Amino acid sequence: MIAEIIAAGSEMLTPHRQDTNSLYLTERLNALGVAVAFKTIVGDNLQHLTDAARIALHRADIVIFSGGLGPTEDDLTREAAAAALGLGLHRDADALTAMYKRFAARRMTMPPNNAKQADLLAGAVVLENKNGSAPGQWLDTTVNGHRKIVILLPGPPKELMPLFVEACEPLLARELPERHFAKRILRIALMPESKVDSLAAPIYKKFADVETTILAHSSEIQLHFLCAKPTLAEAHARVDAVAAKVEDALDEAVFSNNGQTLEEVVLLRLEMRGLTLATAESITGGLISQRLTSIAGSSRTFLGGAIVYSPWLKTKFADVPEALIRKHGTVSEAVTKALAEGIRKQTGASIGLAITGVAGPGDLTDTNGKEKPAGGVYIAIADGRSTESTHKKFAGDRERVRTFAAQQALDLLRHKLI
Amino acid sequence: MIAEIIAAGSEMLTPHRQDTNSLYLTERLNALGVAVAFKTIVGDNLQHLTDAARIALHRADIVIFSGGLGPTEDDLTREAAAAALGLGLHRDADALTAMYKRFAARRMTMPPNNAKQADLLAGAVVLENKNGSAPGQWLDTTVNGHRKIVILLPGPPKELMPLFVEACEPLLARELPERHFAKRILRIALMPESKVDSLAAPIYKKFADVETTILAHSSEIQLHFLCAKPTLAEAHARVDAVAAKVEDALDEAVFSNNGQTLEEVVLLRLEMRGLTLATAESITGGLISQRLTSIAGSSRTFLGGAIVYSPWLKTKFADVPEALIRKHGTVSEAVTKALAEGIRKQTGASIGLAITGVAGPGDLTDTNGKEKPAGGVYIAIADGRSTESTHKKFAGDRERVRTFAAQQALDLLRHKLI
Repeated sequence: MIAEIIAAGSEMLTPHRQDTNSLYLTERLNALGVAVAFKTIVGDNLQHLTDAARIALHRADIVIFSGGLGPTEDDLTREAAAAALGLGLHRDADALTAMYKRFAARRMTMPPNNAKQADLLAGAVVLENKNGSAPGQWLDTTVNGHRKIVILLPGPPKELMPLFVEACEPLLARELPERHFAKRILRIALMPESKVDSLAAPIYKKFADVETTILAHSSEIQLHFLCAKPTLAEAHARVDAVAAKVEDALDEAVFSNNGQTLEEVVLLRLEMRGLTLATAESITGGLISQRLTSIAGSSRTFLGGAIVYSPWLKTKFADVPEALIRKHGTVSEAVTKALAEGIRKQTGASIGLAITGVAGPGDLTDTNGKEKPAGGVYIAIADGRSTESTHKKFAGDRERVRTFAAQQALDLLRHKLI
Repeated sequence: MIAEIIAAGSEMLTPHRQDTNSLYLTERLNALGVAVAFKTIVGDNLQHLTDAARIALHRADIVIFSGGLGPTEDDLTREAAAAALGLGLHRDADALTAMYKRFAARRMTMPPNNAKQADLLAGAVVLENKNGSAPGQWLDTTVNGHRKIVILLPGPPKELMPLFVEACEPLLARELPERHFAKRILRIALMPESKVDSLAAPIYKKFADVETTILAHSSEIQLHFLCAKPTLAEAHARVDAVAAKVEDALDEAVFSNNGQTLEEVVLLRLEMRGLTLATAESITGGLISQRLTSIAGSSRTFLGGAIVYSPWLKTKFADVPEALIRKHGTVSEAVTKALAEGIRKQTGASIGLAITGVAGPGDLTDTNGKEKPAGGVYIAIADGRSTESTHKKFAGDRERVRTFAAQQALDLLRHKLI
């Protein structure tokens, strides 16, 4: 069975609004074993919407409409579906009563326009909408001798999502062979997509029954493994097998195999070892600390730190000798190591992490008179026994350099805590 | 004239990848006065793509294909368009030569498969692609007695965008009445969308020739005013007039009328007054400082500060008396004011900004034994003469509370600098 999703709404034909419901619906449909073959986006125009409905009923087995079920004159999905199917609409007394009750429960009077939300396609079943006034509709019918399932869903994602999962999936599952679905995600920091794929492809290509997707988000690569089987145990066995082999091949480059973010992994490893952390950020200006503090419970291991954007705050908050800054410049291995050691001592943390660099645009004439190139970054980690440091050069604009620099710092810390 | 955009590519029928080219194309088409009436997304399937092309040629005047022009067997847009139009394809000698030269310039041998990228629809004009190997195509033709403009564009945005602007827009402009296009954007922090609209709608509704769009991005509302006129001066006059009236009505809630971000406005106002800034962040953990340092040149006014996540760093880095923390708790007006004053003195900045709060999930049992509710936030600003403070309560999850808290702090600082 193949599906088509029709998103109704003129706002999705502007440069400002995207149809996002279809991504969710596609994920859920794929899990049931249904492929989405077409997506159509159409405005609030009865003729356009009716034509789109007619075409979809011709080429797909399951046609899902999202949006256009509201009470205004622009809400035309019911009318268009009825016209395309050659069916009448009738006002459903139970649905109407439910709507009156919904308004009454909020001590509001239902505006007369809303009544049209109770108009049902002949033969359709009401899908009760707990999160909004427009009910969904499910129709199992025949068009030119072919069976068609037609589903009408309200547009707001908070209404559409639960309605699809709770009301439509059980109905669809009855029509489809039983399938259970397992997923594993490997997350990799700072490795080029082509390198990840060259290491992973020889492995995942041997798992023809596992669907592998590579997603690249700037400084992170994700490998998604998805498998559908008659039983959950079989599906899990397959994704676990491919994920384990690929993780072996990628080795320590994989920072997470269970959905955790890099900052979660770092905080967890600190906590497991009873360690605390403080940061001294110059180039990243708070990016690292805000990522760490975005995680609930981070205060158990992350003490805080300093944003040492101006040179003299490196001395004030992390005791970096002024002479060192004059001699080597702020963006240097020596100053970054001193920053890591200084912030550790000042805060009493087990580990001090420091980062300096040139975000750009343009190079920096440093405090020692030397030119430091845009994209150059120093990272140092001090643990009281020793201080390690690293120098990296990132390409791209200010935002990319800062994002990669923060990612690199967190990934170095993760490696140190392995 | 109405347009349909057909995005070809099976990856856009997965849950992971969205068609984004159409947003860009829609913006550019609207500026020329062309409305997009349909968007269709279809996989790499010759039958599906041909059907979609046939339907689009029936219902739209301008049909733009994006993607499917590559060299692989999955790239079928040329073949599908030819089949739907009932036209042949011929291999264009000039386009083929250009492709050989392109590969030779990179000291590479062109794979034989690539030759099919030189297959042109009969009567089509080549649109030279400077950023990739697949040329675009432009065809001005007639289908069932109706004039149709058919445009084939490569899928990668870096190829599609310049090809559309440089090659297609001049050709389209010849077919359309001359229009020039002016835009103004007002940005408003922390006002509910409904309130912005209730103040702005009575004004912008009087400007029927200006298209007004309200966009809400969590803690920021944007009002976009767009106008197309035969001359640029006329278009500018209209958007300037509506923007000025709406800005008057919204008064100081508007933080930017020229595209600047809130952090840019704050930094500019500091610089104009010769002031410097330091921050002490607890709840936001670096969100404020990373926003400020995301702006090139921020080091002229932003000195840095401290991430005072653990209570004792409030004392260490900003001299907040321990007794004050014990008595009032870390999330309190007294401690936040002391933090703002302390960070100002420690750093030597003109202005100290401090923020504390409970990001959640869950309430906080503070150092003084009192329960502090999730979402509660204190912000203080010290300038050496006086210290102002504010208490806010934000709803939502940890991310939302932190985002709104940072936005509120920057907006208070903006107000102080007016």
